[in-house]
Amino acid sequence: MSPRPSTSEVAASVAAQRHLAGSFLDELRAGTRDGPGVTRAAYGDGEEFAHALLARYATDLGLEVTRDAALNTYVTWPGRDRAAPALAMGSHLDSVPQGGNFDGAAGVVAGLAAIAALRGLGLGRPSCDIIVMAIRAEESVWFQLSYTGSRAALGMLPPQALSARRTDTNRSLAEHIAALGGHPEALSGSSPPLPPGRIGAFVELHIEQAPSLVEAGLPIAIGTAIPGNFRHPSACVIGQQGHVGLPRRFRHDAALAASELALGLDAIWQEHEAARTPMAVTIGRFHTDARSHGMTIVPGRFDFSLDIRAYDEAVLTGLETRLHELIAGIEARRGVRFELGPRTSAPIARADPTIRAALEAGARELDLSWCLLESPASHDAAAFAAAGIPTGMVFVRNANGSHNPSEHMELDDLLTGIAVLAHWVRGVGFVA
Amino acid sequence: MSPRPSTSEVAASVAAQRHLAGSFLDELRAGTRDGPGVTRAAYGDGEEFAHALLARYATDLGLEVTRDAALNTYVTWPGRDRAAPALAMGSHLDSVPQGGNFDGAAGVVAGLAAIAALRGLGLGRPSCDIIVMAIRAEESVWFQLSYTGSRAALGMLPPQALSARRTDTNRSLAEHIAALGGHPEALSGSSPPLPPGRIGAFVELHIEQAPSLVEAGLPIAIGTAIPGNFRHPSACVIGQQGHVGLPRRFRHDAALAASELALGLDAIWQEHEAARTPMAVTIGRFHTDARSHGMTIVPGRFDFSLDIRAYDEAVLTGLETRLHELIAGIEARRGVRFELGPRTSAPIARADPTIRAALEAGARELDLSWCLLESPASHDAAAFAAAGIPTGMVFVRNANGSHNPSEHMELDDLLTGIAVLAHWVRGVGFVA
Repeated sequence: MSPRPSTSEVAASVAAQRHLAGSFLDELRAGTRDGPGVTRAAYGDGEEFAHALLARYATDLGLEVTRDAALNTYVTWPGRDRAAPALAMGSHLDSVPQGGNFDGAAGVVAGLAAIAALRGLGLGRPSCDIIVMAIRAEESVWFQLSYTGSRAALGMLPPQALSARRTDTNRSLAEHIAALGGHPEALSGSSPPLPPGRIGAFVELHIEQAPSLVEAGLPIAIGTAIPGNFRHPSACVIGQQGHVGLPRRFRHDAALAASELALGLDAIWQEHEAARTPMAVTIGRFHTDARSHGMTIVPGRFDFSLDIRAYDEAVLTGLETRLHELIAGIEARRGVRFELGPRTSAPIARADPTIRAALEAGARELDLSWCLLESPASHDAAAFAAAGIPTGMVFVRNANGSHNPSEHMELDDLLTGIAVLAHWVRGVGFVA
Repeated sequence: MSPRPSTSEVAASVAAQRHLAGSFLDELRAGTRDGPGVTRAAYGDGEEFAHALLARYATDLGLEVTRDAALNTYVTWPGRDRAAPALAMGSHLDSVPQGGNFDGAAGVVAGLAAIAALRGLGLGRPSCDIIVMAIRAEESVWFQLSYTGSRAALGMLPPQALSARRTDTNRSLAEHIAALGGHPEALSGSSPPLPPGRIGAFVELHIEQAPSLVEAGLPIAIGTAIPGNFRHPSACVIGQQGHVGLPRRFRHDAALAASELALGLDAIWQEHEAARTPMAVTIGRFHTDARSHGMTIVPGRFDFSLDIRAYDEAVLTGLETRLHELIAGIEARRGVRFELGPRTSAPIARADPTIRAALEAGARELDLSWCLLESPASHDAAAFAAAGIPTGMVFVRNANGSHNPSEHMELDDLLTGIAVLAHWVRGVGFVA
């Protein structure tokens, strides 16, 4: 093995990957453009394009490219001991409809660039496989499931997941996987694509999905935790449809009842904010029934989705109690009925202390400006943490928030994050 | 002319129309059924069916049937002086999507049955034409216009009305009228189908669209006023689309802003209710954008409709001021922008005192149980009133409110209302 390169040599080699990272992201945007943003539906055309693009870049770099039964892509720099637990980096390649170019994809190109940078340092083969994993179907807008691709790889998909239907096509997850040449039948057995012990650590770089780093004036952050959540993807209020002239005492307006719930939860969030207890409530779908609503009809039914997240199990439990109290009060006052429908949940994930310390040490040695950050969003890393795999996260500054076409990341900030990744792999992937 | 029939003879002759009224309503329901309710789109199949059914019944009774350029149907019992101002009864034959069978249609069959009852009394020809007018396109859910058919007949359509698009077909009112053989080009000139002086009085029987009469235990009411309104059919809130994990301080959630408006207006209504000032607020369409919403996306845009109505111009003006104050506060607090879009309005209409007194006198002579009622809803009668034509209204009890499939009217209650109509026509349509 070559002599250990200096931190500044690592930084310089990462900086030399500017063209690689930039051109990957440019080609990806051009190939998945949809109106002002990009659309990469889970197991859809845009996501397929992204995986094919990654495979081309990886092959050009001389790296191994494989796919698993769920069609996650693995780009591997083979180690000396191929049976040793691998070090993995990566993220997902799907997007929300008309989302931004960087959400997910930044973490994949970061892994690729980190490997390219390290290979340029003449370190020889790593001691174990170094993998960039491009994960499928992270955005729960498509199948109303969390962490679909990563949980499929880890053998942790919930029982009914393969029957979940994509919200736009109404075809099941199993059908979508099979249609692209995958093997859904292999995902419910006891031999998952990533058996226990295959991955020794997973670090995910991701664009920050809020403007906290913009506010703080910092290019990157090192993640401390990923929120847990509970969700009701398909909730509704049943009131009574009525006529525009109906006096107030006769009304059971489903939209007003839902509005009370939304503002009630917002007020609870405000309380938590004042007490500096992080949490979030999102009601993303919130609508009267397009088949029957009209200007002169009192809404009799109202549909909505609900995502409540926090970083502390006791906080989550308390929020769920408050939710049900709120609903009971509204039902009594307005003579309506809430049907929350199926409930899903994701556990809170904390960054592994050793990985987190290594990432922090790297940022210090590289003389970067950075901070610690609780992730505002859910990430595939949480699925790895739930499988008992030590995880870490690096966040990159984002001017305009995520899940919208204006999401924006500076290439310089991305390269800063890649330097932290590369520094970490150099430290743990080249043991004697 | 025969001797003046007694009030009990009028009542008995009306009661004999039970089969006519019942079979018309049954055939109408069977021919326009849609799921649990009926659908008679303005200038659509269901409305066409209803007009054809009326024409058949009227022809069978030996009455004249004509249509105007807007395809309103007129059933006429010719008077001795055909040039004299006619007495008109009637209502509309369209419905909301999956609405009830009686909203509108009850007033048309009531006019027909009133004529049939009077013809059975051997009164000879009336002194002027007695008309049943079956009006087009009253339900503003279709073209987002008030009183389309009646205003077309009266030459009072607003300038852009013929270009209004039906919300489901996206075809213009002019196209729809022409497609059914009407003459939209004749509706914007100075020779309306109903020139000034053609109609001397208009009385509309209508199912009550609230359960006030059920609450009061009365079969019918005599109308005193129809509310005026102002409307914003296509309003929206522009916020900023964001990611599910976005901290609260960064959010500009369009759905929460709209919820604040809805509940703010509801609170204003509560104040007015406590002060016994009648009014109503209806937000019938209230929704995130189906093309881009999702469980993990903070809503960046929210669409809604707004209908605010009252019986006093000063109250309406005050409500509009409060609306704008409310919006300004929400915009400032939440960093969003409201775009109320086009504004339409309809003036308040009061029942003509002479007609109202005649209807009240008839109800007393017939020994009925009844009350006076401010109409909760808008009705075509308001368009006649706006044209300077004396109008009156009769409301019939409704167990389940209107604009929903469960709307319900007892045939006995309808016959009670028809008796009042017939009594009025007998009194004013047979002068020497």
